[in-house]
Amino acid sequence: MAPEKELVKLIGFWASPFVLSVRWALKLKGIEYEYQEENLLKKSPLLLQYNPVYKKVPVLLHNGKPLLESLFIIEYIDETWKHNPLLPQDPFERAKSRFWAKFAHEKCIGPMIKAFFKIGEEQEKCVKEACEHLKILESGLEEGKRFFGGETIGFVDIAVAWMGCWARIVEEVLNVKLIDEEKMPRLIAWFKNVVEVPMLKECMPPTQKLLEHNIRFRKLLVAAAERHQSSPLTGP
Amino acid sequence: MAPEKELVKLIGFWASPFVLSVRWALKLKGIEYEYQEENLLKKSPLLLQYNPVYKKVPVLLHNGKPLLESLFIIEYIDETWKHNPLLPQDPFERAKSRFWAKFAHEKCIGPMIKAFFKIGEEQEKCVKEACEHLKILESGLEEGKRFFGGETIGFVDIAVAWMGCWARIVEEVLNVKLIDEEKMPRLIAWFKNVVEVPMLKECMPPTQKLLEHNIRFRKLLVAAAERHQSSPLTGP
Repeated sequence: MAPEKELVKLIGFWASPFVLSVRWALKLKGIEYEYQEENLLKKSPLLLQYNPVYKKVPVLLHNGKPLLESLFIIEYIDETWKHNPLLPQDPFERAKSRFWAKFAHEKCIGPMIKAFFKIGEEQEKCVKEACEHLKILESGLEEGKRFFGGETIGFVDIAVAWMGCWARIVEEVLNVKLIDEEKMPRLIAWFKNVVEVPMLKECMPPTQKLLEHNIRFRKLLVAAAERHQSSPLTGP
Repeated sequence: MAPEKELVKLIGFWASPFVLSVRWALKLKGIEYEYQEENLLKKSPLLLQYNPVYKKVPVLLHNGKPLLESLFIIEYIDETWKHNPLLPQDPFERAKSRFWAKFAHEKCIGPMIKAFFKIGEEQEKCVKEACEHLKILESGLEEGKRFFGGETIGFVDIAVAWMGCWARIVEEVLNVKLIDEEKMPRLIAWFKNVVEVPMLKECMPPTQKLLEHNIRFRKLLVAAAERHQSSPLTGP
């Protein structure tokens, strides 16, 4: 637990899974923190001051010092509050965890997000890319293990496994297929094992609210695409 | 120094700056290693076996275990051989180092490499993007400090500062301007400070050989673009 006078503040957005990862890390460590919800259409001076490079959530402020990028924030939390370790202790296992978390973020989640901003052939290409990489991600999961690294929840779990829920939303909003129950049974079991950990489950935003938010967001993107040629839906 | 029986092997390619980063880390730690040069046009079974996901160099084998991705390999080296630390000890400074190394790789080096595979407007766009991000990278450097984190060489230095040399090669091969001496004096001084460290300098591939290699490589790309519509020079 953080000493009494420590100031921990998370700048986030309720529907951001990257913010959820950080919330999960703080929860598993038992760290109390203040939370500031951002309006992403009108970003706060605090966010712009502390993340001038990307202007994105999450930002974690610890005694006034800003930590950026969810994966690095989780590593920071793990190095600062050493109880309930999230990363394995063995350097080889640590490197493997970092590798798979980055792989999932760049090669699975990246194309899923991109698909959301695309239509037609370009969208199909992103969906295909995500599917192929999800199969590779599954190959990193050990048969019969509850979590990514074994039987204890850890770094890759909280950095990535929310993807199960978000992929379903992308599937529903875009009417595409990302996760094949028959072809990726281990991946699906893993997603479920993680979000069913009670401490994590209670941080999850309500699925219906998340779905409605993303339906509205997609509608805005489609409307913009119909109005302008250079809309985000057709751009690079 | 590694105990006598440890087996450290680096699979690399002489002109790859990401391999150079790992060489630098091993050099600064005083780790002896075996080196296997890859033919990237005909990759070895060893490379394909140990990096089936990306099939890329560098791969570091330590007692038979494969480490992948230069930034994670450097962290592994730092965690395994703890003398001459490369990352700072303070968690906040460690997070900052990871942030800037990733920023430089994704936002500066990424577009530079992409520019190499493009022509015309698309190439110009990549060059512009790299330039803008180089200015931001410079803002991360503290005035008057010899290296990125201070007075001792460390993680960001060996992960990124070879860029000074490689940018010059991209500039010469593509006939573009990436680094403005007048506008980025701190960045240029930093690049110089790092590659002039004697231990690092002796690992650098000869500039002329590197330039000739990249001129040949670019010519191959241009020739392919002229032969096929779907060449890498016009693709996404």
